Amino acid sequence: MTAAALFESLAIPIIQAPMLGASGPAMALAVTRAGGMGSLAAGGLAPEDIVEQIAALKAATDRPFGVNLLIARAAAPDPAIVTEALERLAPWHDRLGIELPAPPNDYAPDFDAQFAALLAAAPPLASFTFDVLNRDQVAALQAAGTLVVGTATTVAEARAWAAVGADAICAQGGEAGGHRGEFLKPGPESLIGTMALVVTVRAAVDLPVIAAGGIMDGRGVAAALSLGAAAAQMGTAFLLAEEATIGKPWRGRIESAPDDATAVTRAFTGRHARGIENDFMRALRPVEGEVPDYPVQNRLTRDMRAAGGRLGDSEVLSLWAGQGVSLTRAGSAADLVQAWWDEAREVSAALHARTHGPDGHRR
Amino acid sequence: MTAAALFESLAIPIIQAPMLGASGPAMALAVTRAGGMGSLAAGGLAPEDIVEQIAALKAATDRPFGVNLLIARAAAPDPAIVTEALERLAPWHDRLGIELPAPPNDYAPDFDAQFAALLAAAPPLASFTFDVLNRDQVAALQAAGTLVVGTATTVAEARAWAAVGADAICAQGGEAGGHRGEFLKPGPESLIGTMALVVTVRAAVDLPVIAAGGIMDGRGVAAALSLGAAAAQMGTAFLLAEEATIGKPWRGRIESAPDDATAVTRAFTGRHARGIENDFMRALRPVEGEVPDYPVQNRLTRDMRAAGGRLGDSEVLSLWAGQGVSLTRAGSAADLVQAWWDEAREVSAALHARTHGPDGHRR
Repeated sequence: MTAAALFESLAIPIIQAPMLGASGPAMALAVTRAGGMGSLAAGGLAPEDIVEQIAALKAATDRPFGVNLLIARAAAPDPAIVTEALERLAPWHDRLGIELPAPPNDYAPDFDAQFAALLAAAPPLASFTFDVLNRDQVAALQAAGTLVVGTATTVAEARAWAAVGADAICAQGGEAGGHRGEFLKPGPESLIGTMALVVTVRAAVDLPVIAAGGIMDGRGVAAALSLGAAAAQMGTAFLLAEEATIGKPWRGRIESAPDDATAVTRAFTGRHARGIENDFMRALRPVEGEVPDYPVQNRLTRDMRAAGGRLGDSEVLSLWAGQGVSLTRAGSAADLVQAWWDEAREVSAALHARTHGPDGHRR
Repeated sequence: MTAAALFESLAIPIIQAPMLGASGPAMALAVTRAGGMGSLAAGGLAPEDIVEQIAALKAATDRPFGVNLLIARAAAPDPAIVTEALERLAPWHDRLGIELPAPPNDYAPDFDAQFAALLAAAPPLASFTFDVLNRDQVAALQAAGTLVVGTATTVAEARAWAAVGADAICAQGGEAGGHRGEFLKPGPESLIGTMALVVTVRAAVDLPVIAAGGIMDGRGVAAALSLGAAAAQMGTAFLLAEEATIGKPWRGRIESAPDDATAVTRAFTGRHARGIENDFMRALRPVEGEVPDYPVQNRLTRDMRAAGGRLGDSEVLSLWAGQGVSLTRAGSAADLVQAWWDEAREVSAALHARTHGPDGHRR
């Protein structure tokens, strides 16, 4: 099956974004069963868990779902840099009354082992973020029956994925919450709004495009399809779903998000990511360019973030969310998907009346 | 007439963005006559020219058009700051073989005089950028029969315009080319993608919203209407129109824009603006936070930019353009507007088939 055929086969062209720490297999299954396409965020999983969770999803549904991995190289940072980074975090550990961790032995799961597990488990679709695979890796997945989606934040990144043979592009607009997928140019130049990114990527590569970033409801779904996207990917919009795995402090901040709530930061993980602004982001802003690259800073802030979740201190949590966060609604994932699609149908009918006149003829 | 009624009365809900230095009365008239709504960029005009150009447009068409002013306070910069800013520009003047200007006596047209002229000329609609009017100014325009549109880059700015009684909001997404309208928080936090900005502004204020930023063709127009915008405002998409007033060097750079061409800079004018990246932007990036605020830097770089245009040196020009610039097409403004609307109609029909099935029934 081609990627275009897969997206066309969806009863509802809505993809649930893989959100490490916020979405699990239950959400992926619920969205898939509702007629959309769920995604498993496998970036933090051990290889055996990847195999097991994919097998469980395959057993639970015949419909297509996706699995996402984060392409991260093994980190071996200079001990002096680690010490300096930990010192920067010391006051935050004091505030929470927890010990500063010792320099860790490893920083992230072994990508090659995760990739081998994914290949063996052969899900219908796999997406990748933070870098680009090589041609052999893409071909191996395709030979196993897995469609390959590359995340791109710029046209140049979409071209890089097309050059290694990807089946589709996930165009991540600057509105999107969580980690930026950027891998060619870090920073503001890779913050391209969804409205411009989808159409410029479509013009540059002859592949189906998934639109991501700022899509909060049926209006956004209809807009994404209008731009020429094959499907609309939604992440933040699922954060208050019953199946979301976020803790109470994060949930509370989503529910009460003020106007224009988010900003992009490197402070939590050493990679640009968008979240609701809080004390930790503000305090580290002057030095955020100096924190070690992902995955080092991500590992070093782990204890702090875990304690913040436990103790209900949302000022030290990474409150990942996109620019549309104030429109996040609660409900079951299935009800949300159906409600957004009902709304997209209404929007489409109203648009058709505006373009063709109320009676369906040219106005 | 309400703003909602005005936008609904347009045969084609496309607004040509006012572009100082790139669009003149000819483009405004052509777009208005084609069934869209043209805009006069009056921010650089003397009061008597504002009166004359509005009168000429009123005489030429019965259809509604807009006039834009930039709300800029009178500048009286510290002479030492001006000297320092001019020294920073000296090598660029040497490169062009022109004299460094003397410190000027005035930096920008007198806004109050422009406003009085606008009020007297009473166009159907007036839009404002860079700040917010007060209640009395808004009420005076409305009493003269002029609808008031406020430019907002954030939800907070939209609320500020609603609070003074504006009739509609122009939501300027981060994709947009040219000057950012931001007036509450300068910088990256006011770069919100159109996809998120239109829906969050709609939720916050009970006013019609014009969507701007990244709209390059009929797909973008259909997307903007899907998001709930009353009309789609397009700027960059008109830069290669026959009626555009940009010079050859700028035009050439638009025609040959590479992937992901633009960045936001303060270097040219002391205000954040988006354009195609060139030598001047790159060279001043490390110190761009230090250049004097608009309108001072804008005035100080005027000779340099004029010489660049004359001598064909596009590396010293402000090449304002939005993130979708690579999709800019040539043609007459009227043909472009009609082509985009034809495309929006096709997009709308295809969307309707996806949401309701090819036979128009629920799928």
